[in-house]
Amino acid sequence: MYLVSEWLGGSLDKNERSYYIDIMTKGQDTKERILGEALDLVSTVGIEGLSIGELAKATEMSKSGLFAHFESKEDLQLEVLRTGSANFQETVVTPALREPRGEPRVRALFDRWLAWETLRTGGCPFMAATFELDDRPGRLRDALETTQREWIDTLTKAILIAMDEGHFHTDIDADQLAYEIYGVFMAFHLYHRLLRDPNAHRRATDALDYLLRSAK
Amino acid sequence: MYLVSEWLGGSLDKNERSYYIDIMTKGQDTKERILGEALDLVSTVGIEGLSIGELAKATEMSKSGLFAHFESKEDLQLEVLRTGSANFQETVVTPALREPRGEPRVRALFDRWLAWETLRTGGCPFMAATFELDDRPGRLRDALETTQREWIDTLTKAILIAMDEGHFHTDIDADQLAYEIYGVFMAFHLYHRLLRDPNAHRRATDALDYLLRSAK
Repeated sequence: MYLVSEWLGGSLDKNERSYYIDIMTKGQDTKERILGEALDLVSTVGIEGLSIGELAKATEMSKSGLFAHFESKEDLQLEVLRTGSANFQETVVTPALREPRGEPRVRALFDRWLAWETLRTGGCPFMAATFELDDRPGRLRDALETTQREWIDTLTKAILIAMDEGHFHTDIDADQLAYEIYGVFMAFHLYHRLLRDPNAHRRATDALDYLLRSAK
Repeated sequence: MYLVSEWLGGSLDKNERSYYIDIMTKGQDTKERILGEALDLVSTVGIEGLSIGELAKATEMSKSGLFAHFESKEDLQLEVLRTGSANFQETVVTPALREPRGEPRVRALFDRWLAWETLRTGGCPFMAATFELDDRPGRLRDALETTQREWIDTLTKAILIAMDEGHFHTDIDADQLAYEIYGVFMAFHLYHRLLRDPNAHRRATDALDYLLRSAK
């Protein structure tokens, strides 16, 4: 099941957090439940480390029971990426898009992205997959690249809207700012997960504040 | 052998680049040669994906020949991390420390770090390992964490020296700036390797310029 690492505070309150964990774990059919477990497994062992054997243990199902749902390991891996992408949309993008246009929306996207990193045992399942798959051409890499591009587009559009709204300077390079915000998130993942730096969350929000202040 | 991906320009000239590839590949004893190949393999398949079988293919040696050098897979993995760390010291840290104290040294560390990312087939071997190992306690994780901490310390010290030299404001938070510079590098890896963004190198250097300009 989903182990919730220490909560870093900020963008999701306790009820909201329980809600997102609930929708990821309850009221799902068997296949969705398997994919939820698989996604959690991927956050720790990586997308290539996801084996039918390990997944059988985590779901307490037989290997043949799993093969009834997924034709091959690659099929399973692709469905896990799709599930992750749908989860990300539901917990990060959709609620943030309900925030007012402009800077509040950019901040909500970022805060929920940090919260997303703490929802699963091993952090963001896409981060490990990114470094695993970047040199391996194929359907999995294509799917991951598409997901990452879509997310960067979402961030960039939110920045462009903030420029339109007069919250940021009109001479900002929105693509560049999205790149820099992405870097802040990645360093957060490293400092939080590998270095276990208790200041990782503060560092990330300070770095974002600094970037957005300079964009004004 | 080391495949040199397209050169992004900047911090190493052609001769210097050949020199570093040479010292990584030539004039080494068998074990060093194996470790060099293993490090290149790790940059594409990850530290967990490094198998004796794949390494046997890459080095055209027998599996039993490889086992004569390394007692176990973990033993091999640890030695690969150590080799990577020594290579990093030699190609990034040592030459950058010859640059004048202050901002030039901070820039040299960063420029050589970007160049390091392009020296091996799959980029920086430590990046993939970071996301693979962050949730797996043990000797390998410990070794990687130490390496990352040492590198962050080196960056932070260079920033502190730049403050001493009057190149940066004395009220800069050096740890925070090191965090932000790390983020710029990680986003470079993502944009360059996964997204194959032809502007990745410019984005990284622009982001660094911006951080250092603001530190003055």
